[in-house]
Amino acid sequence: MIIDAHGHYTTAPAGVQIFRATQIASMGAPVKHPVNVSDDQIRASLENGQLKLQNERGTDVAFFSPRASWMGHHFGGPLVSRYWTEVNNDVIKRVCDLYPDRFIGVCSLPQSPGVPPEKGVVQELERAVNDLGFVGCNLNPDPSGGYWTDPPLGDRYWYPLYEKMVELDVPAMIHGSATCNRAFTTTGSHYMNVDNTGFVQLLDSSVYKDFPTIKFVMPHGGGAIPYQYARFKGLSIMAKREPFDEFLSRMFFDTAIYSQAAMEYLLKTIGVDNVLFASEMIGGVQAEDPLTGRQYDDNKPYLDAIEWLTDDDKSKLFRGNALRAYPRARARIERIESGG
Amino acid sequence: MIIDAHGHYTTAPAGVQIFRATQIASMGAPVKHPVNVSDDQIRASLENGQLKLQNERGTDVAFFSPRASWMGHHFGGPLVSRYWTEVNNDVIKRVCDLYPDRFIGVCSLPQSPGVPPEKGVVQELERAVNDLGFVGCNLNPDPSGGYWTDPPLGDRYWYPLYEKMVELDVPAMIHGSATCNRAFTTTGSHYMNVDNTGFVQLLDSSVYKDFPTIKFVMPHGGGAIPYQYARFKGLSIMAKREPFDEFLSRMFFDTAIYSQAAMEYLLKTIGVDNVLFASEMIGGVQAEDPLTGRQYDDNKPYLDAIEWLTDDDKSKLFRGNALRAYPRARARIERIESGG
Repeated sequence: MIIDAHGHYTTAPAGVQIFRATQIASMGAPVKHPVNVSDDQIRASLENGQLKLQNERGTDVAFFSPRASWMGHHFGGPLVSRYWTEVNNDVIKRVCDLYPDRFIGVCSLPQSPGVPPEKGVVQELERAVNDLGFVGCNLNPDPSGGYWTDPPLGDRYWYPLYEKMVELDVPAMIHGSATCNRAFTTTGSHYMNVDNTGFVQLLDSSVYKDFPTIKFVMPHGGGAIPYQYARFKGLSIMAKREPFDEFLSRMFFDTAIYSQAAMEYLLKTIGVDNVLFASEMIGGVQAEDPLTGRQYDDNKPYLDAIEWLTDDDKSKLFRGNALRAYPRARARIERIESGG
Repeated sequence: MIIDAHGHYTTAPAGVQIFRATQIASMGAPVKHPVNVSDDQIRASLENGQLKLQNERGTDVAFFSPRASWMGHHFGGPLVSRYWTEVNNDVIKRVCDLYPDRFIGVCSLPQSPGVPPEKGVVQELERAVNDLGFVGCNLNPDPSGGYWTDPPLGDRYWYPLYEKMVELDVPAMIHGSATCNRAFTTTGSHYMNVDNTGFVQLLDSSVYKDFPTIKFVMPHGGGAIPYQYARFKGLSIMAKREPFDEFLSRMFFDTAIYSQAAMEYLLKTIGVDNVLFASEMIGGVQAEDPLTGRQYDDNKPYLDAIEWLTDDDKSKLFRGNALRAYPRARARIERIESGG
């Protein structure tokens, strides 16, 4: 069983984008128009997209959420964000129903700058988990899209969401959306900054003390964190925080990083117990690597090539750690494994 | 000859801080009060600080600039920024005059959010180079201190500064200052984000095309860049930019990174021709590494321990590349070497 723990529906049919476009036209009085997407369109988008690559690359199940750069929390206020997020989570639910052995849902949240999570975010998480059967969420620490106007993740502002995450036993992946600040590029500097910043916000907080069982996942191999491990450890010592390695042992990191050297660096720095295999395929980096002749996001071969990984290590990386981070996925994965 | 290419006067005597404090009291009508700092105070601060560590650690000359986190471009507007920057650059000049064989000056710039560089920044660079004998500058891509309100470094807004840098043949190190946005920590997430963001702003620009001889230095081992090399290369291919490796070959990276693994990763990814030895000693990370029993910023031993570096490589890392990045330092370094 190979779980790819980080995938977005980047290939969603045009009907989803048409819904989004209508939101600009009806921005003053948001309306939840019907979304015109057929099952055949969904099948085609996946069978020529993520599912095709899953088959070619030998991965079994993807944790699948709405396209991250399109979450667009900076646009339109809480009602616009709510309708848009519901539509996208509902489309993910249809994906999961059409291919129950291949996709497990992770939701996006209807965030808006300055709108506290109890006003919509908590409710949508509850709906996604209880009604749609999703197993996690993506949390954007900067709904402003590059102006960083919201309180840091350690602030009690976010605690209603954390309470619900703990109650439902679902993790949050710290994931940015598009930037509307031209200082940044979305998938380049902004995503990396979101990763670093979200990590440091949690490090500089008592969130794990207040929620001992809460789970967070760092995407993109953790931005700068593994490479700058010594800087962050030194800063933690200076601040007399909880021992840095204990903090790190509570975080999960995915492998959505695209070179052999970086993959090995990640595993050696973070350790095999806290890393989840993930490709973020058909994601931000869609190009062929001239070094390998493969797409950059075809990154499972990097793990396969690491000779010092034992079978037990690989079982953790490809399956076990994903189930530790996303406990609600366990029953589904076991049912798939038993062919049921 | 061992050059440490990245040092700040973090130990400046209290008179400098007192000047800063008076700026709050006179914010409505900025005044350039006299700065009460004696030569003996400067000597004491260095002989118990940077100079002591240079001697202990076996480094000869430091490129030395005002304390970065104190540049504080977000505070008080252009006249406040001008007076404060002049005072700090003048103190660096006194350091260099007191210890001409041990410190070479690099200036900070009197930036302010939204104030174009021809209104003070260019003039202070010219003064620092021509009148004070400095060899480079530190450029902050986010004078707002964490709200990112200025145009990206590829914008023509910055071109008057670039013209002056090229005319004077001095580089800019891309370096943030304190953040006033509580989403960030200054030396943790903010500095890393500034490194990544400044790099991507230049990558996503025609600055090197328009200024073929301009030089930029990335501090802190380059933030996330070396670890995320494949991501940025993939994004460059997608954007049909100049080949990424050509772009990288124009940039300099310092070694202010604090583990053996990261040091080797940096050198293998960027290559020995574009890396400058630097410790940023008594800088952002002042703690003892429990792994080594040394201060984190005592990082020369990591370079010394790399067996695959040739003598020629080490000569580049410790001296040659610093002189390529900071050409105006050459005459001074050669004079020091000849004992003159």
